[in-house]
Amino acid sequence: MTYDLWYWDGIPGRGEFVRLALEAGGIPYRECAREAGQASGLATDWQKARDDPPFAPPYLVADGMTIAQTANILHFLGERHGLAPADMAGRIWVNQLQLTIADAVAEAHDVHHPIAAGLYYEDQKPEAARRALSFRDERMPRFLGYFEGILERRGKWLAGGKRWTYADLSAFQLLEGLDFAFPRRMRTLRPTIPRLRRLQAAVRKLDALKGYLASERRLAFGDGIFRHYPELDGP
Amino acid sequence: MTYDLWYWDGIPGRGEFVRLALEAGGIPYRECAREAGQASGLATDWQKARDDPPFAPPYLVADGMTIAQTANILHFLGERHGLAPADMAGRIWVNQLQLTIADAVAEAHDVHHPIAAGLYYEDQKPEAARRALSFRDERMPRFLGYFEGILERRGKWLAGGKRWTYADLSAFQLLEGLDFAFPRRMRTLRPTIPRLRRLQAAVRKLDALKGYLASERRLAFGDGIFRHYPELDGP
Repeated sequence: MTYDLWYWDGIPGRGEFVRLALEAGGIPYRECAREAGQASGLATDWQKARDDPPFAPPYLVADGMTIAQTANILHFLGERHGLAPADMAGRIWVNQLQLTIADAVAEAHDVHHPIAAGLYYEDQKPEAARRALSFRDERMPRFLGYFEGILERRGKWLAGGKRWTYADLSAFQLLEGLDFAFPRRMRTLRPTIPRLRRLQAAVRKLDALKGYLASERRLAFGDGIFRHYPELDGP
Repeated sequence: MTYDLWYWDGIPGRGEFVRLALEAGGIPYRECAREAGQASGLATDWQKARDDPPFAPPYLVADGMTIAQTANILHFLGERHGLAPADMAGRIWVNQLQLTIADAVAEAHDVHHPIAAGLYYEDQKPEAARRALSFRDERMPRFLGYFEGILERRGKWLAGGKRWTYADLSAFQLLEGLDFAFPRRMRTLRPTIPRLRRLQAAVRKLDALKGYLASERRLAFGDGIFRHYPELDGP
């Protein structure tokens, strides 16, 4: 079957974590908002076509279910398509990793929107500068050091074993986003995360992803969760 | 078996979402940090006793697994102890609800800590005042209206059906926390959420919870996620 993926068009955002799993898993899907061909396509489907409209995109429509919340979608895909270990301990571990990645993603967003998601960055610049300082100095090393430590204990992939899971794809996307948003800080931290850098490179080279990553479907970072404002970056 | 629950002592915090599920499910557990009898008990276990130290408490130790991330712990308990529907659609729906509740909880926390969790509230008061305004005016009605709408469509409990799930317990705790932190705002919003108020009252009266809620084990709100600063509340 072909899944319907609904997410804002034009930014990678949280939808990209789902796309990477679909692409790497070779799972057919339609990019519905893009196909709808108009800005209102997503809003109409989200608010008018759904029995239980999700709180927010992304959501996946599958077998009559509307599945929302990024980590929840990935948990579903992981179980259904073998993108995570099949045993309970493995499934729980990968879900735990994903939720910690989601926390890091939310904090990366809040750096440029510390006051309100509904305001422009320009309306919260002084606050963003303060939040950026703490994110760069405390949170980035804490999150990255946590994932690096896991790789040190488990090997090439975050769940151990010989094959990637969806959490590895998400860790890749987190690193890509941080590289885009905080290039100076990531350069400084580079020597502290050699294993994460190898994971990032290994995901980029996955046969199932190479074509996607080089295609037009892979959207560039810009005005979404990960944003590059030079004044929010630092050594 | 008896589970080991590790969480900071002295605040309900995120640990309380797990406690409510354990208590309502009649599942034996030990409150390890409290039993350890010293402030360092949790830190020692967390950082020295665990093969894969979680990113943050709460965590549950069960069958040799160390399970962290509140929604992940609840997903595990839900599946293992029947605190969520057994079919995939039901499990996914309850997990989705829980993740949306977790988003609301994180935002409620960031109202008083918009700049950095590592700073005191006193060091980020002007920013907190701005964030509180947007949380009260936009985010509270949005989150509460979302859950109210679900009850309107599904009935007494968030997953429909005749029995509560762990997401109902968490919705109860979210409402209790918001009542504590934003009493004026919650008074204004009361007419808009009659079904949520009935859910809150129904959880409070559950036979399996009544004893717990009246006991000393149920910690009062204070300096945790939900904090009452009158200057951050408003009509």
